[in-house]
Amino acid sequence: MTDNFFRERRTVRQYTDRPVTDDTLRDLVEQAANAPTTGNMQLYSLIVTRDPAMKRALSPAHFGQPQVEGCSVLLTFCADFNRFVKWCEASDAEPGYDNLQSLVTAFIDVVIFAQQFCTVAEANGLGCCYLGTTTYNAPDIARTLKLPKRVVPVVTLSLGYPVSKCADPGRLPVEAIIHNETYGDYSPEDIRRIYAEKEGRADSKGFVEENGKKTLA
Amino acid sequence: MTDNFFRERRTVRQYTDRPVTDDTLRDLVEQAANAPTTGNMQLYSLIVTRDPAMKRALSPAHFGQPQVEGCSVLLTFCADFNRFVKWCEASDAEPGYDNLQSLVTAFIDVVIFAQQFCTVAEANGLGCCYLGTTTYNAPDIARTLKLPKRVVPVVTLSLGYPVSKCADPGRLPVEAIIHNETYGDYSPEDIRRIYAEKEGRADSKGFVEENGKKTLA
Repeated sequence: MTDNFFRERRTVRQYTDRPVTDDTLRDLVEQAANAPTTGNMQLYSLIVTRDPAMKRALSPAHFGQPQVEGCSVLLTFCADFNRFVKWCEASDAEPGYDNLQSLVTAFIDVVIFAQQFCTVAEANGLGCCYLGTTTYNAPDIARTLKLPKRVVPVVTLSLGYPVSKCADPGRLPVEAIIHNETYGDYSPEDIRRIYAEKEGRADSKGFVEENGKKTLA
Repeated sequence: MTDNFFRERRTVRQYTDRPVTDDTLRDLVEQAANAPTTGNMQLYSLIVTRDPAMKRALSPAHFGQPQVEGCSVLLTFCADFNRFVKWCEASDAEPGYDNLQSLVTAFIDVVIFAQQFCTVAEANGLGCCYLGTTTYNAPDIARTLKLPKRVVPVVTLSLGYPVSKCADPGRLPVEAIIHNETYGDYSPEDIRRIYAEKEGRADSKGFVEENGKKTLA
């Protein structure tokens, strides 16, 4: 890993034919599982999809995005209170996790784990891409993956060895993100300044024209 | 960063007096902002708390956890659709983000960013600790930090230079987390095997006795 590892990381949507082996996957999961987790509960499970028929079955829930069938493995990260509740019940403890706050906790837990997994994969020469579609079609995905009660799909990553990285999409200036002590709301001038660079980029202008829109927003 | 960087990372709850400068913080945020973000929207804001009076004001919402006042900077990561909606409105675009799905999207976005920030900080010699209390007392935190509509506090990190790392808390075996193709539910024997190592640890046994409980769960 170079000094610029975090600055230079990019999403990868196209993968070579080289498979991600079970051993590699286990190693990445083991590294990533050292990420922070609320009360050491690890409220997550990872469903690994390799079977082409299963990828095809999941594809509509992801609106047919080509990475679903084009990746080596598709990974569905689920918030999981099932395993923990079963442990509590087997251990004579009162679980008490059937509430929204617990779902939120597991939700945070699984996203922390997924992002750490993404970083670990990138540090090991692989590439991945989040599919933002998982919570839209969670019931369909849950049915296909046979998720029991208390297990909810939250994010999906396509994973493989990179053909190439995506181009730098450009990010907002850090001043747009950081607020000191209290939230400083944005004036119209602030908004113009913050988004000026993004709007001025050649790829943004192309995107606006292609889609017949007046503006990038 | 060493080869074992991800395996050896640990939470840090105790910090030296060395301040985290604004320049350092900017640099960490800039690196972390290259993390994946849905549609390049960056639906998050970061509220930086340095003022001891502000830390004191936030402390009750975090149930008085000592890191709140004991850290160099306290960082509240917020899901933020305010900035993006203002940009849409200034750009003649229909925002249409006042719904639960958008909140979920921003929620995922901000946790990805927070976790990348945590990793970047660790890679740069700093240490941090998640406070799992943020969503419990979100309304109090929002009032103290003067968050406007469409800005929701999701996770909080205490940040500083480490006095020492926390001990390895032990994680579940990877077999407990990975499911191939479909979710393989856990039998009572699976649960016993999966949690055996955790239950057998000396620190776990001490914790059970100290708290007068029958079991760790």
